[in-house]
Amino acid sequence: MRDITVRNPLDMHLHLRDDDMLCLVAPLSAGTFSGGLVMPNLVPPITNLQILHRYKSMIADAIGENSFKPYMTMFYRNYDREFIKNIKESITAMKLYPAGITTNSDSGVSSFDIDTMRPTLETMSELNIPLCVHGETDGFVMDREAEFMDIYETLATAFPKLKIIMEHITTKAATKIVQKYDNLFATVTAHHLLLTLDDLAGGLLKPHLFCKPIAKRHDDKDALVDMATSGHRKIMFGSDSAPHPTSSKECCGCAAGVFTAPIAIQLMAELFIKNDKNIDQSEQNLQKFMSDNAINIYGISPPPKSITLENKEFIVPKIYKNKQNEVTPMKSGETISWRIK
Amino acid sequence: MRDITVRNPLDMHLHLRDDDMLCLVAPLSAGTFSGGLVMPNLVPPITNLQILHRYKSMIADAIGENSFKPYMTMFYRNYDREFIKNIKESITAMKLYPAGITTNSDSGVSSFDIDTMRPTLETMSELNIPLCVHGETDGFVMDREAEFMDIYETLATAFPKLKIIMEHITTKAATKIVQKYDNLFATVTAHHLLLTLDDLAGGLLKPHLFCKPIAKRHDDKDALVDMATSGHRKIMFGSDSAPHPTSSKECCGCAAGVFTAPIAIQLMAELFIKNDKNIDQSEQNLQKFMSDNAINIYGISPPPKSITLENKEFIVPKIYKNKQNEVTPMKSGETISWRIK
Repeated sequence: MRDITVRNPLDMHLHLRDDDMLCLVAPLSAGTFSGGLVMPNLVPPITNLQILHRYKSMIADAIGENSFKPYMTMFYRNYDREFIKNIKESITAMKLYPAGITTNSDSGVSSFDIDTMRPTLETMSELNIPLCVHGETDGFVMDREAEFMDIYETLATAFPKLKIIMEHITTKAATKIVQKYDNLFATVTAHHLLLTLDDLAGGLLKPHLFCKPIAKRHDDKDALVDMATSGHRKIMFGSDSAPHPTSSKECCGCAAGVFTAPIAIQLMAELFIKNDKNIDQSEQNLQKFMSDNAINIYGISPPPKSITLENKEFIVPKIYKNKQNEVTPMKSGETISWRIK
Repeated sequence: MRDITVRNPLDMHLHLRDDDMLCLVAPLSAGTFSGGLVMPNLVPPITNLQILHRYKSMIADAIGENSFKPYMTMFYRNYDREFIKNIKESITAMKLYPAGITTNSDSGVSSFDIDTMRPTLETMSELNIPLCVHGETDGFVMDREAEFMDIYETLATAFPKLKIIMEHITTKAATKIVQKYDNLFATVTAHHLLLTLDDLAGGLLKPHLFCKPIAKRHDDKDALVDMATSGHRKIMFGSDSAPHPTSSKECCGCAAGVFTAPIAIQLMAELFIKNDKNIDQSEQNLQKFMSDNAINIYGISPPPKSITLENKEFIVPKIYKNKQNEVTPMKSGETISWRIK
């Protein structure tokens, strides 16, 4: 099979963490991606410009010589108009977490009362600041995303000019809702395009495949793959690559998160490019999914970077580590059929 | 609250393993139970009298001075009439595994073709040997038991005088089917009466709560609890207590099985006895669930043993170990509100 190229790949849902872990993982994203939307759920979360600028500077140090644009986000709260006007130039989006729903989200939103949120969301709408949402209720783990669809519909209807990004969607239900409203868009991860609950718990239990939202059913995965690989304009790649030390994954209470940043483009090439016959179309759709859609949805101009992949075996490293941290990637020690040239 | 007593408690689904692990876990069951139905999925599985008698002798050695009756089972295959007549006096039941569905079940049944199974099942029916079934398909992990209900119905209809035990049921669907056919009965585990998928994967991932069949939804658990705590004559306690070394549970591919044998009676007391007001009725229902129903269904006469529990805190040991093995129990280090006097 011929080589393929992805121009300006973007990871529109990225956890870079801080301190030593940031130093390990940021270069791994910056090595292949042109830019990424950086999640704000640190401890403490990014809730003002001072924390944001300090974090941005830490990221710049960690990236070093690499050309990589960190698109910053602010942790959503019901901020006032003055605050939002003041941060507008420094951020690409605000990220909303329901309180306690995932890693470091304790101070998130505990009530989706539209009137309470209205001043903030109307200001964001007016200033064209997208709202990224971790869309899960606190219900049964397999139902959390599906139960959140009503809230997406309410938000999309109440704020029709607000761009709302349904983050890391995992269900067939979500692929339908995102297409129903003009102002809804979505990211999907590499792992949710490849896994179901069977991979986590159908045979042996695989903590390195444990993530939130949890991987769902086969028809959910199939719907996500259909939407992504068709090049649909409303869906973009967001890895939700979430590094945890291996010791926090192989224990009696394992943290949620799959680490894919350094292998994501290779995995997506393997998923999109099935055969020689349709390779031109598949490559175009991969380009839309990995970059063009995000550029259009967010109106961003990432630094130019061109990644060429060849159809040759790539053996995923068993671990990625620095002096302080060791992270086990998805497909640790396994083979992917595309590698970066 | 007053003390309660369980007479002749029986664990009608028990994994005693072999070698060093047998030496660790057999005394823990024998300490509180009067007897237990011993599963035959060893390596190699128990498929003839020679292996069975050797295993029974190993169990006797491991139990030592304790009064405990191991009710032996043969690993189901399509045996001929002569074989079955020959083993009848040595076994209490045969245990059927679909091939590859759980630990050490590779040589189980790969096709549920009734005509192929007929000679064996008709002979068992005639000789009054119960058939215990691990009822799961190889489908999506949350659907495996529900998908197996058709096979239970087919077996129950085709062999109306064969006693069929639906082992470790986990779904509302199973509680309905077991009541629909005269010749169907069921066991349920302590953990499936207490856990849902949320406990395994709703927060942090908990490998010590990972089991096959996997814990299901809240309404499934509620249906199991309703049936068991009502003292329904068709449901019996079977722990499916499945010890794995802690190192096989806290790793990158964790074995399925929850270890509850030494805490099962305490856990069931906590589940059944809710308050002083109904304590007489609750104690009676606990007696049925933990012993009387099994005695009636299997027609067995376990050695007398009387376990008295008091409503005082029992702190579950963090681990159970001998020189060779270390096993982490369910509720490791946690508190149960009833303890053995």
